[in-house]
Amino acid sequence: MADGRIADSMNVLAASVLAAALSTGAIDSWVKANRQAVLDELTALLSIPNVASDTANIERNAELLQKMLQLRGAKTSLLRVEGAPPAVFGEITTPGATRTLVFYAHYDGQPVVASDWATDPWKPVIRDDHIYARSASDDKGPIVAMLAAIDALRASRIPLKSNLKFFLEGEEEAGSPHLRQILEKHAALLDGDLWIFGDGPVHQSRRMQVYYGVRGVTGMELTIYGPSRALHSGHYGNWAPNPAALLANALASMRDSDGRILIAGFDDDVRPLTEREKGAIAAVPAVDEDLRRELALGGSEAGNAPIAERINRPAMNIRGIRAGAVGSQASNAIPTSATASVDFRLVPGQTPARVREKVERHLRSLGYHLTSSEPTVEERRSHPRVARLQWDEGYPAARTSMDLPIARSAVAAIGGDIIELPTLGGSLPIYIFEEVLHAPLIGVPIVNHDNSQHAANENLRLQNLWDGIRVYAALLAGME
Amino acid sequence: MADGRIADSMNVLAASVLAAALSTGAIDSWVKANRQAVLDELTALLSIPNVASDTANIERNAELLQKMLQLRGAKTSLLRVEGAPPAVFGEITTPGATRTLVFYAHYDGQPVVASDWATDPWKPVIRDDHIYARSASDDKGPIVAMLAAIDALRASRIPLKSNLKFFLEGEEEAGSPHLRQILEKHAALLDGDLWIFGDGPVHQSRRMQVYYGVRGVTGMELTIYGPSRALHSGHYGNWAPNPAALLANALASMRDSDGRILIAGFDDDVRPLTEREKGAIAAVPAVDEDLRRELALGGSEAGNAPIAERINRPAMNIRGIRAGAVGSQASNAIPTSATASVDFRLVPGQTPARVREKVERHLRSLGYHLTSSEPTVEERRSHPRVARLQWDEGYPAARTSMDLPIARSAVAAIGGDIIELPTLGGSLPIYIFEEVLHAPLIGVPIVNHDNSQHAANENLRLQNLWDGIRVYAALLAGME
Repeated sequence: MADGRIADSMNVLAASVLAAALSTGAIDSWVKANRQAVLDELTALLSIPNVASDTANIERNAELLQKMLQLRGAKTSLLRVEGAPPAVFGEITTPGATRTLVFYAHYDGQPVVASDWATDPWKPVIRDDHIYARSASDDKGPIVAMLAAIDALRASRIPLKSNLKFFLEGEEEAGSPHLRQILEKHAALLDGDLWIFGDGPVHQSRRMQVYYGVRGVTGMELTIYGPSRALHSGHYGNWAPNPAALLANALASMRDSDGRILIAGFDDDVRPLTEREKGAIAAVPAVDEDLRRELALGGSEAGNAPIAERINRPAMNIRGIRAGAVGSQASNAIPTSATASVDFRLVPGQTPARVREKVERHLRSLGYHLTSSEPTVEERRSHPRVARLQWDEGYPAARTSMDLPIARSAVAAIGGDIIELPTLGGSLPIYIFEEVLHAPLIGVPIVNHDNSQHAANENLRLQNLWDGIRVYAALLAGME
Repeated sequence: MADGRIADSMNVLAASVLAAALSTGAIDSWVKANRQAVLDELTALLSIPNVASDTANIERNAELLQKMLQLRGAKTSLLRVEGAPPAVFGEITTPGATRTLVFYAHYDGQPVVASDWATDPWKPVIRDDHIYARSASDDKGPIVAMLAAIDALRASRIPLKSNLKFFLEGEEEAGSPHLRQILEKHAALLDGDLWIFGDGPVHQSRRMQVYYGVRGVTGMELTIYGPSRALHSGHYGNWAPNPAALLANALASMRDSDGRILIAGFDDDVRPLTEREKGAIAAVPAVDEDLRRELALGGSEAGNAPIAERINRPAMNIRGIRAGAVGSQASNAIPTSATASVDFRLVPGQTPARVREKVERHLRSLGYHLTSSEPTVEERRSHPRVARLQWDEGYPAARTSMDLPIARSAVAAIGGDIIELPTLGGSLPIYIFEEVLHAPLIGVPIVNHDNSQHAANENLRLQNLWDGIRVYAALLAGME
């Protein structure tokens, strides 16, 4: 207790020093003087391809991240389980600190369709004050910002106030299939008082935000079968079932044009929002009109309902459809199969297993015989409608209480006019951290919302990088 | 008249000689002895790529076809109009003949997706008694069969009984945009008593068939727009309109899972079938069960209604859909647009212009602002739903009377247990021949129904080629 009191008064002192330093712009000055060094480090990291299945390059990413952590004096190790990309662990012990923050980000990225990119996804380029590369925002940018925050504090002689651990995952974009196993195996090492998630974007108004939860996600690939060989659409058109038409009808029966999910009972498991959560959502600034303008949209779903409200509901998204051919490649033929890739965004109360159950019941109600692998000729012959479903593992949503003292302390340290979101639209495997480590968790994202994450031409707005360094510095040195 | 009588008795004599020759198998014997030569000629023709837009190769096809016709003593010419592949014309005058048959086939082929083919589409290979190549069946096979029929008759000393003209089109698979112009320009040259169409397949029972009409066709490319850049499906999923979901809903609103067209008034223009036509349709042997088995289908549209009945109705076929990505390329993103390629098969009474009018009215009723070119950002911003429609020219259906004496004479000459179809499912620009040349027209197809025409691995069953030579020989030498 006595030690605690001394530490407390030291903390108050440190906090005053920090407040002064930040207010006089020490961190900003450091950033201004060190931009090129920060960009060089980010560029080196972005230059290594990072799709989770690309083992050789994933290992190169992990190797470089370890070196980057070691440069800041962190003790590092690679947390490995069989058949998974390693998680990169790092630990910086702060003398006198009584609290441990654990910083989470992932270093793997979504697959790319290189032909859709203006430049090579793994040859970062700076254009119009943005840096373009896969994972520039999601999540390599935040990792570099956190390390730069440490450099900036040290250069400004502002002491860190918490112990700091890093947990950098290597397969988040592949659905984190080994995350639970890694956390369970290394639970002691990963012990901490608050997890800080660097993943996700700031608010569309460009104001900083913290989030207390995320939507869960599950996905499926739905393939509907037609004739075993492509047929002339004249000789067989409106006799042979057309799988593209069947798929369009199946998808339309699951989700209407306005985003409403029509699958029976889909919303039954949804846990209602608390009054405090509803209040936070209502306080989120309306950016819808600007967003629609920016995205060349004449309207958004559900009669232009606010985005903050919409992302607190479940969603069904069609990622892609492939059937036959279009354009100059199109021929007058009935295709043999049609495939849709779909993801579902889940809110607290829903689970991937229950979603799967409801989707399968729905498809069966349309007359589909369902298989999980390529159906045999005999299966196709003996059922008028045959569909193959391949499910991602997926994971449920999670939502931390908005009232936790340590969370409120973090929000206070960041300062400014922060938006608080009960649930971020995107998905992270937060539920596993809750289940395995029982640690509270908040998200402190720094990257721009318009970063084309998961798509072609992903980018990070440089101003967000500079601001992010200041935000993370405030967390490391300013929390009461 | 006297001449006519002499000619008539000579014809009767010739017919008897022919009947004897055919019954003793002279044509079959010739075929047996000359298979390799026929295949060599077909292989050479199939080896030249023949997509209508590939001008250099189209000209090479036309050149070779002229040579092939000249080898049979035909006077040939290339019928040209500005900007179109030439039609190849040939004429063989038969001394004493009072009747002129005009043989129609097209030498261009559908575009290919080479990666879907087991072998190169333009390097013909023989496998399991089929020859595989683009246009093996549609229509280069019938052209070679007709020429071989002339060779076989001459080698067997059986005289041709009609004058014979050839009209070989070079842009049928591109929708025959210049056909009318070519026919109008060369109407005198193309004068004839009966047009014989070599396009299309024999019946699925493998029995020979003649057809009196074809469905018309028109097609469209429908692109529906979403956000101007791909968006993370978590952060924006069920706020931003998903163009793939909009497209699925639009298509499903136009055509249900059972092939029923739901566009208001679509069937209003359909000319009803006559009692005789209904009778012919009812007499078509039921092949549906075998077909479903062959195609690994557990059912066909409209509650397993007979195919002969179904192809006498209009159809809406989805040729292909492209949106976002599927499989390992799929990412959790809302795509920026979604495109479907659609063809409509029309029956007598319908026109492409009226179909277009009804489809556009339907899409407008769903709230779509329609454009014919890429919409501007301002258009996208000012309309909640924006779709681009690109229409093919298309053409209406046509149907010749089943009672014409010259048609009955042709059917009698072919002999055997012939199926008569009022309308073939596929489409040909027959209406132009009717309108411009006022000549009766019947289809005498010879190729196998299971030829994967318009798709990958198009093929011609060799037995159909041999049988086709005999059928065409009977037409040339046996018509009363």
